[in-house]
Amino acid sequence: MKRALDINQFLHGGDYNPEQWWDEPDVINQDFALFKQTKINTVTVGIFSWAKLEPQEGNYDFSWLDEIFDRVEEMNGHVILATPSGARPAWLAQKYPEVLRTDNRGNKRGFGGRHNHCLTSPIYRKKVYEINTKLAEHFGQRKSLVLWHISNEYSGECYCDLCKDAFRKWLKNKYGDLATLNHAWWNTFWSHTYNDWSQVNPPSPLSEMGNKGMNLDWKRFITDQTISFIDNETAPLKKITPNIPVTTNMMAGNPLMDPFAGFDYQKVARHLDFISWDSYPAWGNDSQTTEELGRNVGLIHDFFRSLKHQNFLVMENPPSRVNWHNFDRAKRPGMHELASLQDVAHGSQGVLYFQLRASRGSSEMFHGAVIEHRHPEKTRAFKDVTKVGKDLEKISPIVATNYAKAKVAIVFSYDSYWALQDAESYSVNKNIWQTIQKHYRYFYEHDIPVDFVSSEDDFSQYDLLIDPMHFLMSKSYLEKIDNYVKNGGKIVGTYISGVVDENDLAYMNEWPKELQEIYGLEPLETDVLYPGQSNLINFEGKEYPVHDYCETLINCTGKVLATYSTDFYQDTPAIVEHSYGAGKGYYLACRTDYSFLEKFYEKIASELVPEIPITKFNDRVSIQIRENKSEKYWFVQNFSDKEEKIELSCELVNLLEDVKDKGIVSLKPFESKVYTLSR
Amino acid sequence: MKRALDINQFLHGGDYNPEQWWDEPDVINQDFALFKQTKINTVTVGIFSWAKLEPQEGNYDFSWLDEIFDRVEEMNGHVILATPSGARPAWLAQKYPEVLRTDNRGNKRGFGGRHNHCLTSPIYRKKVYEINTKLAEHFGQRKSLVLWHISNEYSGECYCDLCKDAFRKWLKNKYGDLATLNHAWWNTFWSHTYNDWSQVNPPSPLSEMGNKGMNLDWKRFITDQTISFIDNETAPLKKITPNIPVTTNMMAGNPLMDPFAGFDYQKVARHLDFISWDSYPAWGNDSQTTEELGRNVGLIHDFFRSLKHQNFLVMENPPSRVNWHNFDRAKRPGMHELASLQDVAHGSQGVLYFQLRASRGSSEMFHGAVIEHRHPEKTRAFKDVTKVGKDLEKISPIVATNYAKAKVAIVFSYDSYWALQDAESYSVNKNIWQTIQKHYRYFYEHDIPVDFVSSEDDFSQYDLLIDPMHFLMSKSYLEKIDNYVKNGGKIVGTYISGVVDENDLAYMNEWPKELQEIYGLEPLETDVLYPGQSNLINFEGKEYPVHDYCETLINCTGKVLATYSTDFYQDTPAIVEHSYGAGKGYYLACRTDYSFLEKFYEKIASELVPEIPITKFNDRVSIQIRENKSEKYWFVQNFSDKEEKIELSCELVNLLEDVKDKGIVSLKPFESKVYTLSR
Amino acid sequence: MKRALDINQFLHGGDYNPEQWWDEPDVINQDFALFKQTKINTVTVGIFSWAKLEPQEGNYDFSWLDEIFDRVEEMNGHVILATPSGARPAWLAQKYPEVLRTDNRGNKRGFGGRHNHCLTSPIYRKKVYEINTKLAEHFGQRKSLVLWHISNEYSGECYCDLCKDAFRKWLKNKYGDLATLNHAWWNTFWSHTYNDWSQVNPPSPLSEMGNKGMNLDWKRFITDQTISFIDNETAPLKKITPNIPVTTNMMAGNPLMDPFAGFDYQKVARHLDFISWDSYPAWGNDSQTTEELGRNVGLIHDFFRSLKHQNFLVMENPPSRVNWHNFDRAKRPGMHELASLQDVAHGSQGVLYFQLRASRGSSEMFHGAVIEHRHPEKTRAFKDVTKVGKDLEKISPIVATNYAKAKVAIVFSYDSYWALQDAESYSVNKNIWQTIQKHYRYFYEHDIPVDFVSSEDDFSQYDLLIDPMHFLMSKSYLEKIDNYVKNGGKIVGTYISGVVDENDLAYMNEWPKELQEIYGLEPLETDVLYPGQSNLINFEGKEYPVHDYCETLINCTGKVLATYSTDFYQDTPAIVEHSYGAGKGYYLACRTDYSFLEKFYEKIASELVPEIPITKFNDRVSIQIRENKSEKYWFVQNFSDKEEKIELSCELVNLLEDVKDKGIVSLKPFESKVYTLSR
Ligand SMILES: [Zn+2]
Ligand SMILES: [Zn+2]
Ligand SMILES: [Zn+2]
Repeated sequence: MKRALDINQFLHGGDYNPEQWWDEPDVINQDFALFKQTKINTVTVGIFSWAKLEPQEGNYDFSWLDEIFDRVEEMNGHVILATPSGARPAWLAQKYPEVLRTDNRGNKRGFGGRHNHCLTSPIYRKKVYEINTKLAEHFGQRKSLVLWHISNEYSGECYCDLCKDAFRKWLKNKYGDLATLNHAWWNTFWSHTYNDWSQVNPPSPLSEMGNKGMNLDWKRFITDQTISFIDNETAPLKKITPNIPVTTNMMAGNPLMDPFAGFDYQKVARHLDFISWDSYPAWGNDSQTTEELGRNVGLIHDFFRSLKHQNFLVMENPPSRVNWHNFDRAKRPGMHELASLQDVAHGSQGVLYFQLRASRGSSEMFHGAVIEHRHPEKTRAFKDVTKVGKDLEKISPIVATNYAKAKVAIVFSYDSYWALQDAESYSVNKNIWQTIQKHYRYFYEHDIPVDFVSSEDDFSQYDLLIDPMHFLMSKSYLEKIDNYVKNGGKIVGTYISGVVDENDLAYMNEWPKELQEIYGLEPLETDVLYPGQSNLINFEGKEYPVHDYCETLINCTGKVLATYSTDFYQDTPAIVEHSYGAGKGYYLACRTDYSFLEKFYEKIASELVPEIPITKFNDRVSIQIRENKSEKYWFVQNFSDKEEKIELSCELVNLLEDVKDKGIVSLKPFESKVYTLSR
Repeated sequence: MKRALDINQFLHGGDYNPEQWWDEPDVINQDFALFKQTKINTVTVGIFSWAKLEPQEGNYDFSWLDEIFDRVEEMNGHVILATPSGARPAWLAQKYPEVLRTDNRGNKRGFGGRHNHCLTSPIYRKKVYEINTKLAEHFGQRKSLVLWHISNEYSGECYCDLCKDAFRKWLKNKYGDLATLNHAWWNTFWSHTYNDWSQVNPPSPLSEMGNKGMNLDWKRFITDQTISFIDNETAPLKKITPNIPVTTNMMAGNPLMDPFAGFDYQKVARHLDFISWDSYPAWGNDSQTTEELGRNVGLIHDFFRSLKHQNFLVMENPPSRVNWHNFDRAKRPGMHELASLQDVAHGSQGVLYFQLRASRGSSEMFHGAVIEHRHPEKTRAFKDVTKVGKDLEKISPIVATNYAKAKVAIVFSYDSYWALQDAESYSVNKNIWQTIQKHYRYFYEHDIPVDFVSSEDDFSQYDLLIDPMHFLMSKSYLEKIDNYVKNGGKIVGTYISGVVDENDLAYMNEWPKELQEIYGLEPLETDVLYPGQSNLINFEGKEYPVHDYCETLINCTGKVLATYSTDFYQDTPAIVEHSYGAGKGYYLACRTDYSFLEKFYEKIASELVPEIPITKFNDRVSIQIRENKSEKYWFVQNFSDKEEKIELSCELVNLLEDVKDKGIVSLKPFESKVYTLSR
Repeated sequence: MKRALDINQFLHGGDYNPEQWWDEPDVINQDFALFKQTKINTVTVGIFSWAKLEPQEGNYDFSWLDEIFDRVEEMNGHVILATPSGARPAWLAQKYPEVLRTDNRGNKRGFGGRHNHCLTSPIYRKKVYEINTKLAEHFGQRKSLVLWHISNEYSGECYCDLCKDAFRKWLKNKYGDLATLNHAWWNTFWSHTYNDWSQVNPPSPLSEMGNKGMNLDWKRFITDQTISFIDNETAPLKKITPNIPVTTNMMAGNPLMDPFAGFDYQKVARHLDFISWDSYPAWGNDSQTTEELGRNVGLIHDFFRSLKHQNFLVMENPPSRVNWHNFDRAKRPGMHELASLQDVAHGSQGVLYFQLRASRGSSEMFHGAVIEHRHPEKTRAFKDVTKVGKDLEKISPIVATNYAKAKVAIVFSYDSYWALQDAESYSVNKNIWQTIQKHYRYFYEHDIPVDFVSSEDDFSQYDLLIDPMHFLMSKSYLEKIDNYVKNGGKIVGTYISGVVDENDLAYMNEWPKELQEIYGLEPLETDVLYPGQSNLINFEGKEYPVHDYCETLINCTGKVLATYSTDFYQDTPAIVEHSYGAGKGYYLACRTDYSFLEKFYEKIASELVPEIPITKFNDRVSIQIRENKSEKYWFVQNFSDKEEKIELSCELVNLLEDVKDKGIVSLKPFESKVYTLSR
């Protein structure tokens, strides 16, 4: 990999906007003094600086940013330099209105906000190309420059005429002729057959929202259009600074901690050198325990790490509270350290904050910051950040490791996710991500490393694939899993899978042959339960509740592990194991609670539990592994607000406290320990 | 009646879209083979086929539909032929944008969806007239053609300039001059007096939503505009195929099972030959028992049957689940047969499905179908449909009967419903339909046939009229009920009645004379209770709770049946009986629960219970009667999921099982029996 | 004060729209007969009469209104004459579309509704000026004319080009140059720096909603634009009728009873001679007791009275129910008298109704009225109104008194309220007004008169200032309270105060010096609790719950009155008392329940309890005081639906019953007594 992130210490720092204070040099001086105190070694700059970098068209002023580079280099720090496309100057929007978005009802945006450029506008792409070129030329040789941060939290859609035309071109390129498109979108339905390309438009509440093929292709188009925007951004950077890797900061949803789904991160990842994401869990809320939320955060770390199957960065992290949750609670004592070390435990190469200094005005002025408005050095956040800074120094050798190699992977396909979310059927909330979280739980609680894979990935390294609610399956995916199982892989599939093909058209006549071979059965009917209704399944002599979805099966040739206990499908198969070639398929025909999944995975996956010299006594403690050829490191973290114990089977080095531990060891509430065999 | 539905067997079949599969002849072949298996004898075709029937303007291709007619005739089946106006081809919308709707904020729709044509556009009317003419000319002599199905689920409004002009013309025609309109709409209020017709516009959130007269006239205009659209559709059909009756499929709301109220079905019915409606109850939900929901469905059947006081058709019915409820639960075993026979019990001349074959893509692909995507002949739906097919054959003689003649009718007036819904007063949810359902319950549970009547209908055949929450009463209606009661009729009126005249203007000075004469009282004040508040009434020595509305009365000359138990109107009349001429008026001044209504109707309506040779032991069993001059048929249906018993007072023929029953008979959960005296 | 309301009896009457009945003289005759019966002496006319006053452009017809004046004068009554700008004739809107509003998405309104004129349109201002001139010229010398009622319930915003230009001019005038505006709005954030005035636009969901400075300036601009609209309305009135005072009817929210906040009533009040407001509490609801709601109503009376620190009028009051609450409950017996006398008790110079006669049609036809549609003289409302008419005559001398002078004031700043509501931080509902209500409770329950003051008011008359959640504090305000406390005042401040300056920019480095001096501490961190979370504070040996907000404090030099009981700030200061100069500052760092506030104010404010010759035994009885140089009057009101007792310490004159009372006296449910020492 040519453009890897080349660092020999963990990055510690984050988003910094000195341009907001350029007329107050004392503030800048204070900032750098405080950076030193808090062991901050990295600043991310330029994200929203376009108006300061190019105050009038063609009139660039980089001198202020030069000074920041100078100061960072004086302290031997690192700079992550952003391209400024996330927001544009007022003059640009005013002179070239085409750069602003149009919504799906045809309303044209005015200037304001951010992240609202047209994805297609040639002028905007040209302007972005130009300023990126200037930035790369000017700062590309700076020794402190470690990473390009292009734009900010890419997202959203545009429905302007330029984008509509681009969509039509994209469709022509994909389908060749209208007859093929008409068939793929099943346009005979409701007389929607097109006979001219000009009749094709994006989905809109004022025209068409129910055409499944159109909706799916629009998401794919938005993905590709975002990619081509990214490629335009990165072209000058790759040319001028061939050794500096490129990232962009990705997002997850709150409070569910599910990946942003406005476009396909798995595809976009292939156009980036390095993955980073912005992590904003609602720590300390009143509806989840910290260990539950911690598990969901561990999962989404694993998701982002898996996008390129390599280390990543948490690019944004609140040093204390955020300013946009329903209740902006301050992190409890210990929580910041716990969350920061969890980042690293799952593969982050540092801990970066939004924001280093709080803005004095406007919409994010009350977002938590390392340096708050008043008495910055006295805040808990400041002290917590300092503690993390010290921790990162103590575990510095770990920067040269990777997250432990996983033998189990969960399949996540954006195409399938979009298609199932859009499917008018089953129930209003299909809870796809919640289902993934439930399956993940077993592995997390048993300290088993988990990868996420897209349907395009290579599965050969995995012993076990978990493939829940995989609604849309392409022919090539079917062949791939067929081979995977035939050659010895194990796969777990569930209800509502293999229903439609890559065009979102139903598979006809029978379930895809490959699925029949793998699972040794065919689903016939999906019984949808109201929230107030449930069934039970009988597994190894015990009953487990099931909710929401119960499929009935036909042609079942496998071993029935569990049957339904009630209703008209009483005593028919609910959970089936089937041998195929050298591998096995497990089919879960109904939505079970975790109580069943725990027993089920214990049965089929207990051999995946890693051998480590540490024993924990309950699920409130998480153990994650980073390793390289020579060393293994165990991050042992107590997500409970009570003291917990672990037992070491041999003496281990406790890096954070610089001592050696053995036998029974106590972890204080929210405490972490990082162990290795020897120094 | 010239254009009656002329059939000698129950129709069994439904919506069929072979145009979606025209390039796959095997599919069509399979369809017809499966139709035979399931005893399907009817297909409804052409509903959304315009793009296939007229792929380019003026270029018609009916050959594919000829082939379908041929196939149907080979199996001696029936065709219900739809006119295609429910959705139009892309070329038509593109070439003539005026055919598409404009919403009440002035947003013009683009092509897409369905049911969204301008109600006024001369071009659209011309195009519809043309294709209807072609269809009638081409298919009108087909022996299999039994019914025209015009358009699909008419609904919605358009606010384009053409429609605005039409509204102004309609108003000019109604009021003659602006002064009259200004008075009827009470335009002095808020200085809304018009002095030029061009100032008049339809209701809009961007101008005026609070003018009651305007809102009511707009609904009436939409009704009339829909009627003139329908008349334009039917003109060529009536001319070319004078013997083929015309219907359109009407709708009811979910989950309430109330009639669609976008326009006045009672008025529209006069322009149709035959009534049909689409029935989608949420069978098996978690907030109602099946007997409760069954009662609401029975009611709405009775409503649609009453539109023309003759048999009707359930035009759409899901063979299994739907795809648009919040939870698309599959019908439990027995439910489909129960619901289908309930259709017939209440007067349907068949059982028709949406859809015969599931679409492969787009928004309705997962709607339940007789022929599903995979293993169609193995689904429960397929078997359930086959069972119903056999049932319909067994009860075939009943096709020549009508629903039993009712002696009780519930008054429903669209004008009044709209006006009361729109009235800014009382409470946010007035629950008019729920009130009707509560009154209906007594009659349903006692197997008493019930009609619904509009305020324009003739009441002379009824012994008892139930007239709840009749807010708007025209002068002519007042005279009619005055005569009705004077001549011996009984009427039950309630709170919030007779408040406004046909212009939605308050009756002044006193309650309309006719109401005073009938009920022997005047309501003075309506006390509105919050949901957390209640009162009681004392009726025959027992107390019954009342909620929501309590009126105080003056000038009460009748017999007080119940008084209020508490509050400042304690001991004042709440329920009053009053003799007038040869009849009686009963006034319910407050909203009671069913516990009171049951006792009340027991007192005044028990003589209406029909004499039948079957005794049931609880309300979970429903008995409906169809009859002709020579025979009576009793549909006995168990809506409970438990076994129930009935007792026969003589030996009866059990048509479905082809045996004779006597004495105590058991009905399995959801089981139906159809009895007659002799074969 | 030149233009005081010059009356020698309480006004009793209200909104009257005879123009709606001008073709029915009997109705008008009946009205005046009923006015006499109900002791109505005042009509408010002309509010929505523009179309009747100027039926065509320039064609005025005041004859009908002359007749009304004549009739009122025949009965020696009073007229409150409205200017008609609240709604305009259709011809005006049609001919000059610029007079109608544009919303913040750019949608232009059509004619209809009311209160929807552009705030800027020169044409509308000219038309209003003209008709106001005509009205003043025509009716200005009428002896019955006591008050001008300009327009109706001013509210709302306009985003048309005229308003946008006016906003830009307002900003230019305020800031002088763009650099200053850019700094005040912190526009470096997200590259929002303007370099041309034409780039500046009002807030809009299609451009910018998150710029705090912009949002705040927009509210201030709307205030000033409304004021200049008002000044244009009043200019001809003040010139032609220099002795007739001018008011406009203000509003409060339901169900919270908080002041309308669309613009700044405190600033607007300076442009009016007299305050009036429209009072619509949800009496008799099912979620509050009447004493709770009565307290909230007492508070908002005090708020409006404080706008000019003089008597006021309740301009609208429902004689019975309203027609726009979720449940339009009729007032319980006694409630109308109780509420009416409460108006007067808090300083109203009369009791005026919306509406005298119910409209026959349109949106307010079912709003309660003195004269209802049917049997007007028999309604409870009619009798209740008559009783109030008699009461007002009995207490007539009180018209010459003022509300008792307050020694305690609650600070309310619109700027601060807007800024904190708009602050993206803390929690979704900040409950500012609820917090004010909680503090007010102590004083209300202890019969201590309370004023409300703006940050611009003079505080020197007050012993105690309550200043809760004062988020935005200007420099001048800080200096003022510094002086106030230094010179002996007591002040109570709370969490989330002094956070930003007048530009909504954070105070930097430390809390404002003045606040440090007053409170002897600095807040460091605001811990935000989820609704399911709480803490406790320990005050004088007892624990009290706290919710929502807990600040941690530093540099605390005062006397710690209470400390936190749990969490990481356990045992740190929560409530602090601090002496400064001759005065004291009390700081409440957390949101307590009333249980604490009661004890707290008992400690610091019990000396403010007024000495009165009446003892009450619980909080369900309210005592309010009106007085002049020679007399004191006590309004003793029982807000409970049970009988309550009071004890008189000497014999007092009971004005309503025209007797003398002494010793223990009973008040029936909802009963009021008005006492004075001697006649
Ligand atoms: Zn675009
Ligand atoms: Zn139209
Ligand atoms: Zn304007």
